[in-house]
Amino acid sequence: MLIQPGELLANINSPEDLKKLDQSQLVQFSQELRQFIIDNVSIYGGHFGASLGVVELTTALHYVFNTPEDQLIWDVGHQAYGHKIITGRKEDFHTNRVYGGISGFPKRKESEYDAFGVGHSSTSISAALGMALASNIKGETQKQHIAVIGDGAMTGGIAFEGMNHAGASDANMIIILNDNCMSIDPNVGALKEYLTDITTSHTYNRMRDDIWKLLGKVSAFGKSAQDVVGKLENSIKSFLLKQSNLFESLNLRYFGPVDGHDVNHLVAVLNDLKDIPGPKVLHCITTKGKGFAPAEKDQTKWHAPGKFDKITGEIQKKPVTKPQAPKYQQVFGETLVELAKDNDKIVGVTPAMPSGSSMNIMMKEMPDRAFDVGIAEQHAVTFSAGLATQGMTVFCNIYSTFMQRGYDQVIHDVCIQDLPVNFCLDRAGFAGADGPTHHGNYDIAYMRCIPNMIVAAPMNEQELRNMMFTAQQPREGKAFTIRYPRGAGVMPEWKTPMEAIEIGKGRQVVEGDEIAILTVGHIGNYAVEACEKLGEEGVSAAHYDMRFVKPLDEEMLHEIFQKFDKVITVEDGCLMGGFGSAVLEFMAENDYSAKVKRLGIPDRIVEHGEQYELHKECNFDVEGIFSCALQLTEKALSAKV
Amino acid sequence: MLIQPGELLANINSPEDLKKLDQSQLVQFSQELRQFIIDNVSIYGGHFGASLGVVELTTALHYVFNTPEDQLIWDVGHQAYGHKIITGRKEDFHTNRVYGGISGFPKRKESEYDAFGVGHSSTSISAALGMALASNIKGETQKQHIAVIGDGAMTGGIAFEGMNHAGASDANMIIILNDNCMSIDPNVGALKEYLTDITTSHTYNRMRDDIWKLLGKVSAFGKSAQDVVGKLENSIKSFLLKQSNLFESLNLRYFGPVDGHDVNHLVAVLNDLKDIPGPKVLHCITTKGKGFAPAEKDQTKWHAPGKFDKITGEIQKKPVTKPQAPKYQQVFGETLVELAKDNDKIVGVTPAMPSGSSMNIMMKEMPDRAFDVGIAEQHAVTFSAGLATQGMTVFCNIYSTFMQRGYDQVIHDVCIQDLPVNFCLDRAGFAGADGPTHHGNYDIAYMRCIPNMIVAAPMNEQELRNMMFTAQQPREGKAFTIRYPRGAGVMPEWKTPMEAIEIGKGRQVVEGDEIAILTVGHIGNYAVEACEKLGEEGVSAAHYDMRFVKPLDEEMLHEIFQKFDKVITVEDGCLMGGFGSAVLEFMAENDYSAKVKRLGIPDRIVEHGEQYELHKECNFDVEGIFSCALQLTEKALSAKV
Repeated sequence: MLIQPGELLANINSPEDLKKLDQSQLVQFSQELRQFIIDNVSIYGGHFGASLGVVELTTALHYVFNTPEDQLIWDVGHQAYGHKIITGRKEDFHTNRVYGGISGFPKRKESEYDAFGVGHSSTSISAALGMALASNIKGETQKQHIAVIGDGAMTGGIAFEGMNHAGASDANMIIILNDNCMSIDPNVGALKEYLTDITTSHTYNRMRDDIWKLLGKVSAFGKSAQDVVGKLENSIKSFLLKQSNLFESLNLRYFGPVDGHDVNHLVAVLNDLKDIPGPKVLHCITTKGKGFAPAEKDQTKWHAPGKFDKITGEIQKKPVTKPQAPKYQQVFGETLVELAKDNDKIVGVTPAMPSGSSMNIMMKEMPDRAFDVGIAEQHAVTFSAGLATQGMTVFCNIYSTFMQRGYDQVIHDVCIQDLPVNFCLDRAGFAGADGPTHHGNYDIAYMRCIPNMIVAAPMNEQELRNMMFTAQQPREGKAFTIRYPRGAGVMPEWKTPMEAIEIGKGRQVVEGDEIAILTVGHIGNYAVEACEKLGEEGVSAAHYDMRFVKPLDEEMLHEIFQKFDKVITVEDGCLMGGFGSAVLEFMAENDYSAKVKRLGIPDRIVEHGEQYELHKECNFDVEGIFSCALQLTEKALSAKV
Repeated sequence: MLIQPGELLANINSPEDLKKLDQSQLVQFSQELRQFIIDNVSIYGGHFGASLGVVELTTALHYVFNTPEDQLIWDVGHQAYGHKIITGRKEDFHTNRVYGGISGFPKRKESEYDAFGVGHSSTSISAALGMALASNIKGETQKQHIAVIGDGAMTGGIAFEGMNHAGASDANMIIILNDNCMSIDPNVGALKEYLTDITTSHTYNRMRDDIWKLLGKVSAFGKSAQDVVGKLENSIKSFLLKQSNLFESLNLRYFGPVDGHDVNHLVAVLNDLKDIPGPKVLHCITTKGKGFAPAEKDQTKWHAPGKFDKITGEIQKKPVTKPQAPKYQQVFGETLVELAKDNDKIVGVTPAMPSGSSMNIMMKEMPDRAFDVGIAEQHAVTFSAGLATQGMTVFCNIYSTFMQRGYDQVIHDVCIQDLPVNFCLDRAGFAGADGPTHHGNYDIAYMRCIPNMIVAAPMNEQELRNMMFTAQQPREGKAFTIRYPRGAGVMPEWKTPMEAIEIGKGRQVVEGDEIAILTVGHIGNYAVEACEKLGEEGVSAAHYDMRFVKPLDEEMLHEIFQKFDKVITVEDGCLMGGFGSAVLEFMAENDYSAKVKRLGIPDRIVEHGEQYELHKECNFDVEGIFSCALQLTEKALSAKV
């Protein structure tokens, strides 16, 4: 169903159309754009608050700049719905984040207006700088390069690296700091305090007050002294606004703060900035969820609320007909607190994902022992290593896809030093609607190649709890990675007593003697179903939940390869270098020669969609495992009949 | 040979001994410590300038603080020689960086005084913060946590992430900014300019001058006005030094700058800082190479000069008896310029390794087209992606070990967007004397699992040139990784004409029919020798230089597995998930069942030593390949007889 756009928006399908509006119409246009986003997201779901917060900024940017010739980069990209709608994707907008539909993020292949693909935070300054310096080389001196980056994303180290380079360059670029005091959860850290400080002008006010007190005395000396005082004040004011600024320290000209919801003022400011050469920062104050009262009030909840009633603000819940299995993240969050109550060495670390990881439960119950370190995965890992050197038992929870950003620190600060840090990788495997930037496809491959690393994946809630129980027990060295997917497990009654698992021990789930199916993690549940279906076709399939990719359960593998000459491995991770490859390595080392078929994520970028849709696309859902087993056992034909 | 320490140093084997000195003796002690470093490095080689620059700071730190109870972290660690000498490793110091000897970097397993293992830059703030917050949890309120970090390392994003967290915490920690304006090469970027600015007080002076001019007029109004002016000046001065500071912006109390070569002043300042709670920064100005004139003069050359004459300052050259093969880095650097002269799309990017990568050749010849972006690997990769979107042909040169730090950006900004960026990974495989923090062991595994990525390794100089020639030709999408080792190739006459290689095509180097040896990269030269030795034993071994780990030359592999039932793969990378595993994956997909033995780096941390020593230790030198082939062909016994 196509949502009807407002009167002005109805005729706008490109920035060119937008530019035909009179500037006096931009307020109305912004309102229509905002309403269109509300109407769509309320019905189809998606990210919400971020895009509402930049409606006026989006309008002003496309009104002022010559996109797509000028390069506009949206950091993270949650906030780019308005941009997509203006740049020709209004009609397709109801397919946002749907399998086969448009992406929830800017994406180069989708539109020439999407100058740089995003998803992970803090990349926009580096990308824009690359573009700007390329323009310098090509002599395209009039070309504009604009990075729109949130104050949350600004805490990511690469943003600082980019500013350090930009400030020493003659790049023609504008960094628009979209300051709303939020990541998905409230932003944290010293930078946030600083930005609040300059926004509310505490620093300037404090200084001004001091100086006024003194100058008051001087001005008693008469009119000419008062003139001097006036000049002095201007001098100090301009100094404070320019020189005493973090961005000016990095040689980036600083402008602002400006009201990010005053579209006409934004148009004026951006027009001015266009003519100022060199790298510069525009500090823009916005409100996440602007214009939709419930979203302004609870910004974390309304980051991506799902479908909702746009009149009442009530968020739709899925109808519950039977007891639901919990999300893995909930099991993590509650189990961590349960363990931490008995083990005072336990601490938790999250890089800006308290609600997404459920670390917020521990942050609430034990605020001194759970740390939100901001969007800062590198720091999260090394900080965890530092904690571990002092005997702390650290659970550092990072989404699989974001762990890529702490990779060096895992190798260099944790594993080379053989520190027993626990990494819990949420959203491992396909992330679903967020798509390729957020898929956690590579963690098995990139983690298992590191020495002093244990890699495990639970098949269900109880297994996750037992793995966490095991990980918090004292051990000599070795990092411990536990990866689990986005979404729900399979056990409505999940609060089972916990017990230790021997590290490197798998378990047989289904007996059988024709073919063995080896899995790690949640997709083991597909294998159980596949075994049942195979049984119906007369194929006796065994299923082993290996639990550990590293160390492999070699005893179990010897049994398997002595018994079976047909083996399937299944993983929700990349096939190159993954779990299946580890099994092949075991075989080569031990001279086994079974026929092995590896199922998992192929060597290509898989787009967005529901997890089950992507599993099906990649042939490792129940049907995929079933068919593969039939083929291997050569019963494919008879089954098809 | 043990170098004799000076009179005071002779009796000092621990910080406890140092503390027994009268403070008046610290100047002499510092001189002796400096001389001991000069004496040792001149004979045994090693890093030089950095440690000379912090002799006084090292002395003061161990004199004032209660190490190892207080946690002292040396960022990067090049500068920790003095620390090692004071903390019980004086007698072993001549084994520095030698196989089986002490490490060139602080290392937890080596000494309790090495609070955190280092090697890569910018980790110290995060680690110290972890330790400090652990101390808070444990109620160890008196414990001190000190990170010593250079201005170069301060540009790495994780340092900023750490400061952002530290500034919002109540951690009891001191960040000592060791400001010498250098990385290995001169430091670059806006931060460096800023630090120079506050050091030379330009900002403060400029402001003061302005205000004085105005106040001069006011003071004409008499004595009481002059009093007010005096107070005003103090107020402004204190404001400028405190509030208008990048570090104060991040809520870190800022002290300094202080002279880092005045040991007595340092002792006084550190004693003061001990009693000031919370996170703070001491800005310390030092000179790299301090006290050894040639090293002060050419700081890059004297970063790690090798052995030298400590009187004349002449650096020893290895005796040249025959034409030498060039270092791979030299081939890279010169070839890049050669190509760039014919292809104006080519640009070069290095994160703070202009001389180490030989990018300095292009920076000198084509300053507008070669970028040193500072210690900022994440930014280097995304910046390269930005350049590539504008049609530039980017050669981004990053040491293999440092590429770990740009991993997410390779996946997220380059490969997901299918941008044709070229990555040249220098120092792939064992780094040699720098040891485990610098070994480039994991790149094959962590790169080949990414879609849209080509991974290749040249066996010699000509191959590197041809791969670079190939990489600069226009292509649709796909990143191209070329990895090569530290050190020299094999071709003294290396400036051969270049030609394109078909991507994914290997080449047969030695004919044979009993066993096939498959290699990628420089260690293929070992295989050639091994084949000769095998021939002498009557074993007919074929050698294939596969060139590409990805895509594999499947046509060649089909030929190989149709012909041979015994295969050895050799790589100077980790065995888990590496090249050999890729070959096993090919076999599994194509139902081949040869006996395959994979040689490469085992799943453990391999310490430092000469590359050939480490290859031998891991059994993939000539002898290792030879023995493996004999065993596989079951001629081992006869050969031994």
